[in-house]
Amino acid sequence: MEKVFLPEFKSNELARLGDSAVLDAPTGRLAFTTDSYVVRPLFFRGGDIGRLAVSGTVNDLAVAGAEPVALSLGLIVEEGFLIEDLRRVARSVASTAREAGTRIAAADTKVVERGAADGLFLNTSGVGRVREGADVRPERVEPGDAILVTGSLGDHGVAVLSEREGIAFESAVESDVSPLASLLLPLLDESPGEIHMMRDPTRGGLAAALNEIAASARACVAVREKDIPVRPAVRGACDLLGLDPLTVANEGKAVIFCAASAAGRVLEQLRAHPLGRETAVIGEAASIDEDAPLVEVVTALGTSRVLAMPYGEELPRIC
Amino acid sequence: MEKVFLPEFKSNELARLGDSAVLDAPTGRLAFTTDSYVVRPLFFRGGDIGRLAVSGTVNDLAVAGAEPVALSLGLIVEEGFLIEDLRRVARSVASTAREAGTRIAAADTKVVERGAADGLFLNTSGVGRVREGADVRPERVEPGDAILVTGSLGDHGVAVLSEREGIAFESAVESDVSPLASLLLPLLDESPGEIHMMRDPTRGGLAAALNEIAASARACVAVREKDIPVRPAVRGACDLLGLDPLTVANEGKAVIFCAASAAGRVLEQLRAHPLGRETAVIGEAASIDEDAPLVEVVTALGTSRVLAMPYGEELPRIC
Repeated sequence: MEKVFLPEFKSNELARLGDSAVLDAPTGRLAFTTDSYVVRPLFFRGGDIGRLAVSGTVNDLAVAGAEPVALSLGLIVEEGFLIEDLRRVARSVASTAREAGTRIAAADTKVVERGAADGLFLNTSGVGRVREGADVRPERVEPGDAILVTGSLGDHGVAVLSEREGIAFESAVESDVSPLASLLLPLLDESPGEIHMMRDPTRGGLAAALNEIAASARACVAVREKDIPVRPAVRGACDLLGLDPLTVANEGKAVIFCAASAAGRVLEQLRAHPLGRETAVIGEAASIDEDAPLVEVVTALGTSRVLAMPYGEELPRIC
Repeated sequence: MEKVFLPEFKSNELARLGDSAVLDAPTGRLAFTTDSYVVRPLFFRGGDIGRLAVSGTVNDLAVAGAEPVALSLGLIVEEGFLIEDLRRVARSVASTAREAGTRIAAADTKVVERGAADGLFLNTSGVGRVREGADVRPERVEPGDAILVTGSLGDHGVAVLSEREGIAFESAVESDVSPLASLLLPLLDESPGEIHMMRDPTRGGLAAALNEIAASARACVAVREKDIPVRPAVRGACDLLGLDPLTVANEGKAVIFCAASAAGRVLEQLRAHPLGRETAVIGEAASIDEDAPLVEVVTALGTSRVLAMPYGEELPRIC
């Protein structure tokens, strides 16, 4: 920690190497989240486990309407892991945290013997300040709400999988892994009450995110296949691998439910941001208080199919 | 998470299964800490990895003068891990959190394939509210400060090691693993300005804790061997294994530096608590602003030796 991470992190709290970081408490409401990262390989096109760990936790805060105040970093390192790779991860953690406007305030390292872990596992937890006026939760979803996604789906999962399996696609796919605080939080300044629900569709992709939201909101939602942005290279890779791009993980995208009246403004605001240029309105929340919450996809042919909750892990250790 | 942990945790935030828990922010200062747990075996005399993970993070908050507000739990589980063992850990996490007066507000589980992890690793992060008036940090150590430990040393390390190596000692040693918030925080209500520094001597034991404090405080400290509580069974085991009990991990003890004038009151207050009955004053901070911060032990024979910072990990995966 002292030799590899501190020089990168330039964190006052961390430099003190105390048992806890002490911060000024933000006023109002606090968001708190945790995630472990076991991705393999550790370095992939468009990112690495460090960028993934910081982005994932920042995004979990952002979709709760919270700006990141401080992150913690827990490392489990297998004996014999290359110090140069650890430095690379440290640099990536530090630069992604800077990009997200936050810092690593607490950290811990454990080393286990060879064979007891697969190289490197990370855990990041995060504390955030919930934006005043924000109230983002599935129970706020209303019939007629517009559903937006902030860009193309499936990029992260396909990038990691193609790296792992040594598959090269015609146009190489890069992970979308990015911290989304600067994309999402301004929506809450502009339309605080009209942003009803946000989620980053990671494990299980859009299908899992929509099914979870539908279940919590007791809602039926419908999305139009033709409006869901998927890159041709991702679609091709998914065809080849027998995957549905709607169930593949993303690490730099958000699904947003907002009041229909605000959809135009929200779309415009998202598209003006470099991380949201390809934002699309993909569907609507149809009804609430259904006995059977449901996610439907309207296909290009105009027919309808149920978008099921993906079972198990189609793509293990993708994030 | 839903089937094994939720029934034990009874946590409203967790039950919502959102991306982040949302809490009311405590006023004043916030403490934030993280730790990963890779102990082997997972179950040992006096505790298990779940009790260890909750106690460790609660104690990191408590020695910063903070009461725990919320904890997060990150699990990395090896495929094939017994669900019954996971349930046992869940029960232990839940009951230890209750004992410490806190709750699991955020959680995450990752499963890795067989051979990619050693059974189960845990990470706990914690958010706490720093007690008003508390200012606990090594820079506050002053010449003449009394040094106390809240009980016998080396119990945790010896308990885990003897379990691991299948060594039975005459009187079996139990781990001291316990959350210390209810022991330590009342000291700050009684003598807020006079508690200068606290630390839980985990990895590296008392030797590491005192050396770290001496280095940060730029202090020389001296402790008396005869006053340091070590159980005969622990001493015997350490003799047998070639270990110094002062470098062996503890998980339910604290080292406290307080103003000499407050030492009597602090001692009395600690001894009145079930977890502090064997509290002892073991030495003093001698001088500050030394070029060579130093920890000295005065032996039973009246001679002096330097208590060095333990190098490497004498006892790997003990916590």
